[in-house]
Amino acid sequence: MEALKQKIMQDGVAIGKDIVKVDSFLNHQLDTRFLEEVGAEFGRRFADVKVDRILTVEASGIAIAMAAAPHFDYPPVVFAKKAAPNTMVEGFYEEEARSFTKGTVSKLRVSERFLNAGENVLILDDFLAYGEASLAMVEMVRSAGADVAGVGIVIEKGFQGGAAKLKAKGVRVESLAVIDRIDDGTVIFREE
Amino acid sequence: MEALKQKIMQDGVAIGKDIVKVDSFLNHQLDTRFLEEVGAEFGRRFADVKVDRILTVEASGIAIAMAAAPHFDYPPVVFAKKAAPNTMVEGFYEEEARSFTKGTVSKLRVSERFLNAGENVLILDDFLAYGEASLAMVEMVRSAGADVAGVGIVIEKGFQGGAAKLKAKGVRVESLAVIDRIDDGTVIFREE
Repeated sequence: MEALKQKIMQDGVAIGKDIVKVDSFLNHQLDTRFLEEVGAEFGRRFADVKVDRILTVEASGIAIAMAAAPHFDYPPVVFAKKAAPNTMVEGFYEEEARSFTKGTVSKLRVSERFLNAGENVLILDDFLAYGEASLAMVEMVRSAGADVAGVGIVIEKGFQGGAAKLKAKGVRVESLAVIDRIDDGTVIFREE
Repeated sequence: MEALKQKIMQDGVAIGKDIVKVDSFLNHQLDTRFLEEVGAEFGRRFADVKVDRILTVEASGIAIAMAAAPHFDYPPVVFAKKAAPNTMVEGFYEEEARSFTKGTVSKLRVSERFLNAGENVLILDDFLAYGEASLAMVEMVRSAGADVAGVGIVIEKGFQGGAAKLKAKGVRVESLAVIDRIDDGTVIFREE
């Protein structure tokens, strides 16, 4: 998605060799008009699959899922929670997901009530790095007896291997921009 | 908003005298088609004010802000974060917000880069109870030299006093549904 690459180059801040900070449009401030374009692009990329439900993870993922929902005829969205709220007392799917960027391990949880056997679930997230969060969501969908329609990612850090792990599990991955490397504050994209 | 009251009665779960659980459409699973109606209703309620920016708090607030954004011509949304991410190293506005429901105290933070003096900021959130999160956001907006265009709330628990505290600070509050009390598993709404 050319407009996304432009946006990353214009508004993103590359830090070291691993991090690109996009909090001015994706992770803290949300460029809602631009996210509308991102949502439409996911609609085009996954136009060939049936999407009964979108699964994402809080917090930034919620914005992406909301932007994409109109382009899939408003399916329910469920977002995995990173900590256990006191009202989630009934059964839930739980998977650990390490964030190498943040140096933390989260327990991702989704209530059993919101993943149903037989559904086609589209997983959306803002970043794909080592793939931990996406893999956790794939496991949860499959634990529920549902199928993964695909994983849609806004920004993939191609040098961290997440996409290969997902593909090894038979999951289709669509990344709107793939970063090959980050070099002295410059983001180098993979050619499409 | 009559459709919201119907939704709360149909899909909400009242617990004790204080809690109504709406995780099937607002807090964990998101009914995206219904949230589109919620967003449009905020657009109507605040049609008379200039909105340069929407401020909310992660996680559920993001869905509401995204649903509302098209009805205010896609302003930027900024969501307050509940913990300090390692990439937020520069200046930020910080306010404490106690959650009586969850029994926790969060530090809400918004980067100084995403609140600008002179802007009109609409604050949106899913719940208004004791008003802690909304008051924290009002303080942040005013600390930035910006004006609060109003506070828009999906579900106000009218018996917990948050709206009165906001109004005492000169803030306009628009709640789409006001719960007067929760009685043995039944939600009683305030007449409009």
